[in-house]
Amino acid sequence: MLELRLLQGSLLKKVLEAIKDLVTDANFDCSATGFSLQAMDSSHVALVALLLRSEGFEHYRCDRNLSMGMNLNNMAKMLKCAGNDDIITIKADDGGDTVTFMFESPNQDKISDFEMKLMDIDSEHLGIPETEYEAIIRMPSQEFARICRDLSSIGDTVVISASKEGVKFSTKGDVGSANVVCRQNTSVDKPEDATVIQIQQPVSLTFALRYMNSFTKATPLSNTVTISMSNELPVVVEYKIAEMGYIRFYLAPKIEEDDEVNS
Amino acid sequence: MLELRLLQGSLLKKVLEAIKDLVTDANFDCSATGFSLQAMDSSHVALVALLLRSEGFEHYRCDRNLSMGMNLNNMAKMLKCAGNDDIITIKADDGGDTVTFMFESPNQDKISDFEMKLMDIDSEHLGIPETEYEAIIRMPSQEFARICRDLSSIGDTVVISASKEGVKFSTKGDVGSANVVCRQNTSVDKPEDATVIQIQQPVSLTFALRYMNSFTKATPLSNTVTISMSNELPVVVEYKIAEMGYIRFYLAPKIEEDDEVNS
Amino acid sequence: MLELRLLQGSLLKKVLEAIKDLVTDANFDCSATGFSLQAMDSSHVALVALLLRSEGFEHYRCDRNLSMGMNLNNMAKMLKCAGNDDIITIKADDGGDTVTFMFESPNQDKISDFEMKLMDIDSEHLGIPETEYEAIIRMPSQEFARICRDLSSIGDTVVISASKEGVKFSTKGDVGSANVVCRQNTSVDKPEDATVIQIQQPVSLTFALRYMNSFTKATPLSNTVTISMSNELPVVVEYKIAEMGYIRFYLAPKIEEDDEVNS
Repeated sequence: MLELRLLQGSLLKKVLEAIKDLVTDANFDCSATGFSLQAMDSSHVALVALLLRSEGFEHYRCDRNLSMGMNLNNMAKMLKCAGNDDIITIKADDGGDTVTFMFESPNQDKISDFEMKLMDIDSEHLGIPETEYEAIIRMPSQEFARICRDLSSIGDTVVISASKEGVKFSTKGDVGSANVVCRQNTSVDKPEDATVIQIQQPVSLTFALRYMNSFTKATPLSNTVTISMSNELPVVVEYKIAEMGYIRFYLAPKIEEDDEVNS
Repeated sequence: MLELRLLQGSLLKKVLEAIKDLVTDANFDCSATGFSLQAMDSSHVALVALLLRSEGFEHYRCDRNLSMGMNLNNMAKMLKCAGNDDIITIKADDGGDTVTFMFESPNQDKISDFEMKLMDIDSEHLGIPETEYEAIIRMPSQEFARICRDLSSIGDTVVISASKEGVKFSTKGDVGSANVVCRQNTSVDKPEDATVIQIQQPVSLTFALRYMNSFTKATPLSNTVTISMSNELPVVVEYKIAEMGYIRFYLAPKIEEDDEVNS
Repeated sequence: MLELRLLQGSLLKKVLEAIKDLVTDANFDCSATGFSLQAMDSSHVALVALLLRSEGFEHYRCDRNLSMGMNLNNMAKMLKCAGNDDIITIKADDGGDTVTFMFESPNQDKISDFEMKLMDIDSEHLGIPETEYEAIIRMPSQEFARICRDLSSIGDTVVISASKEGVKFSTKGDVGSANVVCRQNTSVDKPEDATVIQIQQPVSLTFALRYMNSFTKATPLSNTVTISMSNELPVVVEYKIAEMGYIRFYLAPKIEEDDEVNS
């Protein structure tokens, strides 16, 4: 039997909004340690990894490991019916073919049960090796989202170049070209406003803006975003979920030579 | 001659927004007692009854009974041109073929006259018998609107079941099923936040969510909604209009057997 | 070389939003006195004239007169990427074929460069004679925008009639007819709320509402709008840009006889 009670139900709503456009169907894996998901996007280019640790739940009962296949769009539809202040409980029987989302309003006057059929989804769990990244950028998540959105109005790809001084986001398209430079800046009033760059060596990688924009749907989950890059490795765009875990997005860089030839 | 001056013009704007999607053309009936309307929706399934009593108007002159056929969409277009703080006066000559809406801004600097052609509309006035209902639910209008909207994302019909403990709204669809239970609750800070259920015997009826959602367009008119149900009778969904009257929506229940067979 | 630094960058963003729907491509003319533009709309019915005087810029360097052809839609796309509090600098080399917009965030942490290709645009500069207008109306710009929008829901043209007592905006259409009268009013708390009418003789002219609505896109630039009319002359709808200049829209009146015959 599974029963996971999350006081801050809005958090689960935000998680679904963050991934539902990228991933159609996925298995949620429940174990004693937490509630997690790993899934490729439908075009098999980007990978999403979600972890909500058991300690973050007010009540966490998971008798045996369960893998529950869900249609994320339908799940998001149901979670949209939860109020932002509602407590959300996820319930399932071992071996059952449904999952129930229960929403309790703050004053307990309104109790909702939404039951959804589970799906059988083939999936292989990729082992993601822990890596030391050559460049790690932490910056305000809204700033990152704004830059990705702005550059999308000019071009299709973004070159992210990290150096000691700062990080540069560049694009070009039919309209013209654009460079946005964010300087390292740690002297800020609020720590979440800082832009901090840890560099072992300068890195410059090219990515499809379409995916970056999709990742920034997670912005409501965290004030900051961490972008970890090494040459020839997928970038990791991570949004921490306060005291519970994270959403991480992985995206392989584009091989730049092709662009150079064409431009 | 007809001249009805309403200080709170925004109220008439809200009335039109509440009914214009349900009813295309309708007769407004003016008599010494008030300004009223009774109309079926275009598919002849739901009935709307509006009453604005003469006492609610700052000035009310109606020399003889008048029935004025109006296209509600056009009337709503004109009323949208009134500011929310404007005073609205409805004017018509006996036997004339136009109606004039006059809007006065609060400081009297801006005076607008909108003249609309009247239409000839055949209509029969249905006598609606006063009934004792088996279950009467009074609840916050926004809560009711939220529940109807939420359930629409899951299914097409809602079963409303009233008992002493509370009222349950249920639906099912391809995605899954949903139950929302609102408990009787009278210990609230503001009386309009209460959920009050008067029961003579438990009632459970099925309705098309499409119509319920349409009725909830009247939500801005009142903090509370009253839902009156008896077995095999149309439900009445009523929004009181402060100190002036009401909008009531009538909708026949669906025969549930059909659903049971198909599900 | 050209280098124009504008502390209030949001102002340039608003200018572009005001004219980009009316004008597709246009030459911006830079001289020692200022940054200006004169262009016809694509159907050659309305004329826009923009002036931003050099004194309004924090830094203004223009070594020789330059005429820079730009696609306003692309320029607007780039300016949308500037934050509302950003400082904007326009840069160009003499004889170059590009222009660069540089955006500096208030704390200088983020610097963006957007480079756009210039275009060759044939244009003739019309001399607009200074005229004494028979009627000059100054009114709140939001009020004017509201009236144009409201009347558009009823008809396609507006008759603007100015007299000593006030200004009347009239339209008619299939739905009916509408008259909005704004009285002269100078006893207001804030000077920008006044409606002031200077009349040498009553004027009544008819205009296409489509263009009027387009002009009101400039509303965010100024709290007031000035409408100058003389019989048989184009109306001037002017939005002052605080301490820097103006946007003026010119539109020829419709010949009313045609309407009269048809109505």
